[in-house]
Amino acid sequence: MSYILVTGGAGYIGSHTVIELVNHGYKVVIVDNLCNSSYDAVARIEYIVKQHVPFFNVDLRDSDALDKVFKQYDIQGVIHFAALKAVGESTKIPLQYYDNNIGGTISLLNVMKANSVKTVVFSSSATVYGDATRFENMIPIPEHCPNDPTNPYGKTKYMIEQILKDIHTADNQWRSAILRYFNPIGAHPSGLLGEDPLGIPNNLLPYLAQVAIGRRDKLSIFGNDYDSHDGTPIRDYIHVVDLAKGHISALNYLNKLETGEGLFREWNLGTGKGSTVFDVYHAFCKAVGRELPYEVAGRRGGDVLNLTANATRANTELKWEATLSVEDACKDLWKWTTENPFGFNIDNYKWQVFNDDKSDYSNRLHTVSFANGFKVSLANRGALLQSVVKNGTSVVCGFQDPSRYIEKSNPFFGTTVGRVANRIGGAKFELNGNTYQLAANEGANTLHGGFHGYDKQTFFGPVAKQEKNGDKVVNTFLFKYEDKDGNNGFPGDVECVIKYTVDDESVGIEFIGSHLETSPAEATVINLTNHSYFNISGTDSTDGTVVKAITNTQLEVDDSLLPTGKFVPTHTDITKPTKIGPDCAFDYCFVVNEAGSGIDTRSDELKPVLEATHPNTNIKLVAATTDPAFQLYTGTGIDTPGFKPRSGFCVENSRFVNAINVPEWRKQVIVKRGETYGSKAKYTFVDA
Amino acid sequence: MSYILVTGGAGYIGSHTVIELVNHGYKVVIVDNLCNSSYDAVARIEYIVKQHVPFFNVDLRDSDALDKVFKQYDIQGVIHFAALKAVGESTKIPLQYYDNNIGGTISLLNVMKANSVKTVVFSSSATVYGDATRFENMIPIPEHCPNDPTNPYGKTKYMIEQILKDIHTADNQWRSAILRYFNPIGAHPSGLLGEDPLGIPNNLLPYLAQVAIGRRDKLSIFGNDYDSHDGTPIRDYIHVVDLAKGHISALNYLNKLETGEGLFREWNLGTGKGSTVFDVYHAFCKAVGRELPYEVAGRRGGDVLNLTANATRANTELKWEATLSVEDACKDLWKWTTENPFGFNIDNYKWQVFNDDKSDYSNRLHTVSFANGFKVSLANRGALLQSVVKNGTSVVCGFQDPSRYIEKSNPFFGTTVGRVANRIGGAKFELNGNTYQLAANEGANTLHGGFHGYDKQTFFGPVAKQEKNGDKVVNTFLFKYEDKDGNNGFPGDVECVIKYTVDDESVGIEFIGSHLETSPAEATVINLTNHSYFNISGTDSTDGTVVKAITNTQLEVDDSLLPTGKFVPTHTDITKPTKIGPDCAFDYCFVVNEAGSGIDTRSDELKPVLEATHPNTNIKLVAATTDPAFQLYTGTGIDTPGFKPRSGFCVENSRFVNAINVPEWRKQVIVKRGETYGSKAKYTFVDA
Repeated sequence: MSYILVTGGAGYIGSHTVIELVNHGYKVVIVDNLCNSSYDAVARIEYIVKQHVPFFNVDLRDSDALDKVFKQYDIQGVIHFAALKAVGESTKIPLQYYDNNIGGTISLLNVMKANSVKTVVFSSSATVYGDATRFENMIPIPEHCPNDPTNPYGKTKYMIEQILKDIHTADNQWRSAILRYFNPIGAHPSGLLGEDPLGIPNNLLPYLAQVAIGRRDKLSIFGNDYDSHDGTPIRDYIHVVDLAKGHISALNYLNKLETGEGLFREWNLGTGKGSTVFDVYHAFCKAVGRELPYEVAGRRGGDVLNLTANATRANTELKWEATLSVEDACKDLWKWTTENPFGFNIDNYKWQVFNDDKSDYSNRLHTVSFANGFKVSLANRGALLQSVVKNGTSVVCGFQDPSRYIEKSNPFFGTTVGRVANRIGGAKFELNGNTYQLAANEGANTLHGGFHGYDKQTFFGPVAKQEKNGDKVVNTFLFKYEDKDGNNGFPGDVECVIKYTVDDESVGIEFIGSHLETSPAEATVINLTNHSYFNISGTDSTDGTVVKAITNTQLEVDDSLLPTGKFVPTHTDITKPTKIGPDCAFDYCFVVNEAGSGIDTRSDELKPVLEATHPNTNIKLVAATTDPAFQLYTGTGIDTPGFKPRSGFCVENSRFVNAINVPEWRKQVIVKRGETYGSKAKYTFVDA
Repeated sequence: MSYILVTGGAGYIGSHTVIELVNHGYKVVIVDNLCNSSYDAVARIEYIVKQHVPFFNVDLRDSDALDKVFKQYDIQGVIHFAALKAVGESTKIPLQYYDNNIGGTISLLNVMKANSVKTVVFSSSATVYGDATRFENMIPIPEHCPNDPTNPYGKTKYMIEQILKDIHTADNQWRSAILRYFNPIGAHPSGLLGEDPLGIPNNLLPYLAQVAIGRRDKLSIFGNDYDSHDGTPIRDYIHVVDLAKGHISALNYLNKLETGEGLFREWNLGTGKGSTVFDVYHAFCKAVGRELPYEVAGRRGGDVLNLTANATRANTELKWEATLSVEDACKDLWKWTTENPFGFNIDNYKWQVFNDDKSDYSNRLHTVSFANGFKVSLANRGALLQSVVKNGTSVVCGFQDPSRYIEKSNPFFGTTVGRVANRIGGAKFELNGNTYQLAANEGANTLHGGFHGYDKQTFFGPVAKQEKNGDKVVNTFLFKYEDKDGNNGFPGDVECVIKYTVDDESVGIEFIGSHLETSPAEATVINLTNHSYFNISGTDSTDGTVVKAITNTQLEVDDSLLPTGKFVPTHTDITKPTKIGPDCAFDYCFVVNEAGSGIDTRSDELKPVLEATHPNTNIKLVAATTDPAFQLYTGTGIDTPGFKPRSGFCVENSRFVNAINVPEWRKQVIVKRGETYGSKAKYTFVDA
């Protein structure tokens, strides 16, 4: 399997291009030094494309590190975005621009050459033309327009073009596609990716977006006395998704050359249609739904009337054309802006790699903290809850060392459990006339989804967001896992999304299992939960914790812990305060709703089903769920270093145990193609 | 003391510029990665300027190593030559050109910036203009001529100019002088430095020089149908020494700017006078003294009629003007070519650093070997003879470890001895009415020049050359030491040159002490020798060596080993074969010529004065000298680890011991201002 290496793949245009590459069947490796971008973009790319995209935090100038990537993956070609790109900044710190952009490119080309990779799509810019209005008949600007960049940024692009040109002249097997961008605008229609607006935006639309959300007062329009229909200058604005697709077209074009045939060719990527500043302003105001404040200021030095692309060459040779409008771009930008007002930036949130190999970002530990000291950490593996700290006390069992999570003795600490939590009797079930034989991983039964359950999977994401309402801060984290038909013997393609909602006293978990429309199976079975072990004692034992539940009814189980189908009272009436400990242990499925439930309970009442306190602390845990049952497990079987029996207890919301094999309960867990399984749980930690 | 850092200072133009810098009072540090140059150039620079010039074998792209140089020396400004520079090669390996030239410059500028060094003279080229004949009125080419380089080499120069320009725009304290060279030709008038003609020369004169010495058949003249007086194209050829001086003018110009004032400015360095190919051809033929073969071939693609500099800006602003003619250049080139037909390249010669600090090239060990296995090693410290190997037998005592030479127990192994070898009684002497009191470093006397004699000095050079006459190969090595007035108490400035002449059986040593015309003293005293210990036994003892001398007369000495003035026969008649050993030891000054000698004996007969054999080997040593005496010392006092008493014996040619204090002998050693002391010794190792 060969890969396309994308440098700067975490950046604005890079991230959109990675998505299009994957959409067009390419495998991608991203290299980015994150000096002006965020790994969150990569996490969101994976979330969107539902594939792992290998990422390396490598500066291109580090040839040795870059060479390792080329040695590790079979790289077929490179799309080279990585560059500093602010025109104004480039005039202030030109040496850094030359170092990063040209130095980085030379290093990249050296490594490519050493690895016999000779295909490159280069992210150039219409900036190389400089003021094309100096020449006769050069608007719209064709590729043969003389180059004369007027700032260090543009010069770096120009020089890199020259380098690629000379390399091709020296070795005509090199294939270089030079893509000269006009004015990229917009964002990904998903609302998950866009330009990360650090600092004061230099470009029209990002600025306008900040005016719209109140981060800037008003737009300044530099000159309204140009010879255009409304007096403002004309530029060629291209939707970033169209631009991204242009890279695929260029790459395909290079890949279709004859074996051994090289190329050096420039293509403008623009719409070929000019828009004035006012055109764009009005389009964006329409997207926002109100007029935005602006003022007309004097002309800006260096600005000219019209810089529109002649995109004919790309249209005809690459069979590529911009199809999205300025209006589309404004709509997508506004969605991105409203849903991510500060881009990828989230206050009081940090992450660290949560693998032994610190260069592997796939499993990370995400920690959000609050003014009152409440702190929650989540990891990609199993979309697990690794830690909750309340009043300085750790109230959830978890490992500091990521490798502990893959040990056999790990009792499912904090993890999501699926595709079917708890036991499936005889490791099989029937559905729509088919018998599905599963792996029996606990005696004759299947426990927690089998040998390769969700607890052992690395979830994509998270899509991390933050909302603030006065002092109230709410963080959400979306994790995603693609559970394919046949995994662990289960039928049907299921997309599992775990959404954590964290505020300064609670951790909410939304369990979503979509049985995809494209699934090969008519129906499947889903039962999701989270397997956190709570401990509010402030010690390493929960002994003495006082619990009080909403129900005293449990599912009766046989010797192999499978329900008999009967509801029975438990050994101690836990609707009254009950002190748990060695003499009062539980591992039963308690029934909140004897009638069971439908597939998606998310709009049902989020019912408090159990509360717990401990005399050592003044912390009270309230567990709530929309599910018809919960497993109360007081941790008798914990047997992993650093913890002991009863170091934690679980309150696992779920459907009834083995429901798929009990006729009256089956509807709780059967999810037809196109349907979505859903439930919620919430763990609140309040002062007792 | 602040320094000018010269990158590429070992190269053609760089080395000439370093010399001019030193001549103009600048202190210089050289950085060069020697990828296309030779350290021999640096050795010769030091030899010419008689100053140590710190050198670092550092690639500019190694920022850390470069930064260390900036930290070690107070760098005031940089003259930046380091670059790959062959136009044709640049079209074949452009990436290496961009990497080396642009990558190196960016790294250099980063390090300069980090060290607050903002003055740079940049080695650019008229190549940046490309074909200036495209434009009206641009011949001779002025600095404002549009740039359009047509090859990667020229583009790197153009891009670096752009980078420097942008850096100055961003921070106007930067001072950049861009020097655009036309066609540098010629060599240093000393014949010691010039263009090292590796490979097939691309330029007219180096090619012609190789035709002249028979390395190439004939010159090809590309086109004789141009519109010039003789039909060949016109270029602006500038003597490399003129060019070098242009850098000093530019540096002085920058240094005279007001404090805090910056500059970015380009200057053409050319003569402003065009010469045709035939003009140059004829001038060189005249220098050589005969017509050289040539043929007229067709025009070469890209060539144009006339590319002459308009040098007015440099003439008026820098007050610089080329003063040397094409004829001067041809004469100097021919001298360089005949005296160094293969440039710095010498067959069967290698050197290694001979210091504990391997980055310090000042003291090196130079080894030349011959087809018959004869091998000789010399070091800069003391211009010493470290090793002679004859028939696989080491016949000279020496240390492998350079640090051994600075130990107190080192009995002057192999070294040059001066300013006055042997003893000066009472550590003083009278000369022209002055009494000179020296340091008494052996009892009441001064031995071997005092505490800081020539044996402890690092000699400049060597100027290493090789002559071949059929199978006969002769290597010469010139070392130089500047012994200033007052050193060790001696009067007068003495320039000491030690010239080794090595062939496949002998080591000749020429001792030259020039009492400089500029010396503050009217006269001084000189007596030079070499203190090698020979051992032809093949063991660690010379016992049993049979010596036979030309004379049995020695200087009579008193108890403090000072001559009484009388000649006496020695204890054993060594004009007959005499077996030396514990019972037959010598440490006497034998007299070859009782009448003494004049100051410069070099044209006297090189007389064999002693021969030695040993029954263990069939090696016979013959020691010859032009001097009136020699000290035969059989090594009784050797007391240094690895050696023992009588591990070697010395035959030290010299003037009479303490001659300066014996009226009849004084003339042997008194050297008046402007006079030159000279003598020769030769040690031949033949089959017995």
